[in-house]
Amino acid sequence: MTAPTPNASTQAVSRMLQTHPRRAQVKYDPAALLECIDACFECAQVCTACADACLGESEHLVHLVHCITLNSTCADACLATGRALLRQTEPDEAVVRAQLQACLSACQACAAECEAHARNMNMQHCAVCAESCRRCEQSCQALLA
Amino acid sequence: MTAPTPNASTQAVSRMLQTHPRRAQVKYDPAALLECIDACFECAQVCTACADACLGESEHLVHLVHCITLNSTCADACLATGRALLRQTEPDEAVVRAQLQACLSACQACAAECEAHARNMNMQHCAVCAESCRRCEQSCQALLA
Amino acid sequence: MTAPTPNASTQAVSRMLQTHPRRAQVKYDPAALLECIDACFECAQVCTACADACLGESEHLVHLVHCITLNSTCADACLATGRALLRQTEPDEAVVRAQLQACLSACQACAAECEAHARNMNMQHCAVCAESCRRCEQSCQALLA
Amino acid sequence: MTAPTPNASTQAVSRMLQTHPRRAQVKYDPAALLECIDACFECAQVCTACADACLGESEHLVHLVHCITLNSTCADACLATGRALLRQTEPDEAVVRAQLQACLSACQACAAECEAHARNMNMQHCAVCAESCRRCEQSCQALLA
Repeated sequence: MTAPTPNASTQAVSRMLQTHPRRAQVKYDPAALLECIDACFECAQVCTACADACLGESEHLVHLVHCITLNSTCADACLATGRALLRQTEPDEAVVRAQLQACLSACQACAAECEAHARNMNMQHCAVCAESCRRCEQSCQALLA
Repeated sequence: MTAPTPNASTQAVSRMLQTHPRRAQVKYDPAALLECIDACFECAQVCTACADACLGESEHLVHLVHCITLNSTCADACLATGRALLRQTEPDEAVVRAQLQACLSACQACAAECEAHARNMNMQHCAVCAESCRRCEQSCQALLA
Repeated sequence: MTAPTPNASTQAVSRMLQTHPRRAQVKYDPAALLECIDACFECAQVCTACADACLGESEHLVHLVHCITLNSTCADACLATGRALLRQTEPDEAVVRAQLQACLSACQACAAECEAHARNMNMQHCAVCAESCRRCEQSCQALLA
Repeated sequence: MTAPTPNASTQAVSRMLQTHPRRAQVKYDPAALLECIDACFECAQVCTACADACLGESEHLVHLVHCITLNSTCADACLATGRALLRQTEPDEAVVRAQLQACLSACQACAAECEAHARNMNMQHCAVCAESCRRCEQSCQALLA
């Protein structure tokens, strides 16, 4: 996993963490924290887009129903997790860990489903989605380690 | 835990579950599922309101910062969980269980914090919030059992 | 529009508004505010459930794609609106009004789509969803008046 | 407004739009659409972080309460809008426009508040937040034009 080239969005979130009045109390490695927040919000966007792209696959739609359900639940888990990680003023570590575990589980399941559709039905949006899910899974794993 | 008297909202969600084309495949006890969905959305509302009410407690605000962070993260976890439970078309059981665990953890921590503020500072909104968090914690526990 | 029989959830939110330290500054009629918050969270739940129920309608699925997109976007608008209304500590009235307008627009479009499916394809979950959308549309209209 | 240098997240969302089965029916200019989605999710993250950073400003906290309320409601509006824009399979144009208007209104109010705190109290996180809010406001305006 190579680090992302910082763009406008990542830079803005990075600057928020650097100007945070409690930055000295943050428990996580700053680079790992930023990577995980970025991966969660990327995965939330990509899963929302994949559910929608699957809906647009008229011919294959009935085979993509499980994928859409996973995409939708994964997007919600990623948003809840990314937002929990952004809150560094007196957070509860156990609560954040449990949400990271839930996110990791959702990303893992969604990646596996999307990889199957990319392989078996040549679904390109599922291939992109699987990559974002794997990136997010790994970044959650890194924070949990 | 007594069942809630059904109101407009609970009745509407109940009717959605009863008219769902895949209702025969739902893995959970229907009453326990409805109770947990209702508890998640109640807790999401009440935690959002408690964070806001704490913000309005000008004199005590600095002592309520941890509570506001917990309220905010608990509200997000409850929404992600309630929405995951509403999706009964080909859900992934392990993913939903991990999200239920995260919700239970958030509700437990938020309830404990709010109970302390209700007891020590006579914060009435925290007392109400603690009740909703305990209701949600118990209903997640019931689905996980 | 008859007022909902208060249940556990509505009662909890009602008690949060009654114990709010800034309750004297709230601009809205308390009953209309509570009704709109309740209607937003009901509609968010019911629209999430309707998108999922539509996904489970294997035979009719291709005809329900627009409905699923509307359900999903309406659920998100209702959550954003219900949460904005729960925040009564120094809110911005113009921002809340614009979000109420967006919610009203989403509920109106989603209700019309669901009413058509209830009428033409006898989709019972769409009939329930249309009722919740109309309730929410009317309660947004009442607050905007 | 210069286009952001694409990073991992923006590239992933860009590839989702490029592989979308309904990409030929998308009503918006593709670059403007991608810019607005990216700006919405950046602003949602940055506003969530700004509310949290304000909570950590123990000495100035009572003066930042309106800012925290605006940040929270702006974050929710941005998420609802970004997700609505990601759904390009049979969307409802009027619904999306109303949500864009709500987002623009929230970003405008939040930017003005944050700019005042950056200027008067030298709040660096508010300065970063104001930039993200202005970027998002402009990208909503561009799509509405």
